[in-house]
Amino acid sequence: MNAESKPGDSLSVQLRLRIIGAEKITLGPGKIELLGLIEETGSLGKAAKAMGLSYMKAWSMIQTMKPLVRTSRGGPCRGGAKLTATGRAALALYQQMQNDCVSSSAKTWKRLQRLLRG
Amino acid sequence: MNAESKPGDSLSVQLRLRIIGAEKITLGPGKIELLGLIEETGSLGKAAKAMGLSYMKAWSMIQTMKPLVRTSRGGPCRGGAKLTATGRAALALYQQMQNDCVSSSAKTWKRLQRLLRG
Repeated sequence: MNAESKPGDSLSVQLRLRIIGAEKITLGPGKIELLGLIEETGSLGKAAKAMGLSYMKAWSMIQTMKPLVRTSRGGPCRGGAKLTATGRAALALYQQMQNDCVSSSAKTWKRLQRLLRG
Repeated sequence: MNAESKPGDSLSVQLRLRIIGAEKITLGPGKIELLGLIEETGSLGKAAKAMGLSYMKAWSMIQTMKPLVRTSRGGPCRGGAKLTATGRAALALYQQMQNDCVSSSAKTWKRLQRLLRG
């Protein structure tokens, strides 16, 4: 979920947004990537694998964002998972915030790039 | 250099921008904080201390951003340091990008907050 500028540029900008609740990170780039992969694959196992995480690590991550993900236990496909309506909305809003940031700072970013390239 | 929402909110958002050059991080929240503290204190030692870093760590950080900081060696004040004109401009542009992001995503952030609070 990094928003980077085009390849070919010698400098790129990486943007990370973290949503923090009560001294504890509740939603950051890693969890957002996991949500996106669950949405894409319909499987917690496949999402974990795509991120190079153990199944248990991915499982523990979704325990901290229960209203966002629904897992199918006891079904034929261990690790079957999908986003709830709230999860899909949260993912979309996070991505929208990221897009808002990238668009709004693009002009200043060009100036900073020129400055740092000398 | 985190841009957080007001205390009293149960959720806050933390924004981190990293400027990356050639596979290597050249400017991120830590270095920006160091630049800001050098600007404020005029001293690498004081800036390091304020961040809980060793002098050597802060020194090695500024070695990766030489056009941005000027140190006074051999002077009476070991660790005397100040930003170059380029350094002040880079700091201001980075902060401007951060402000651009915070302003542009504020409305979406309100929606995400309402969603996550349930």
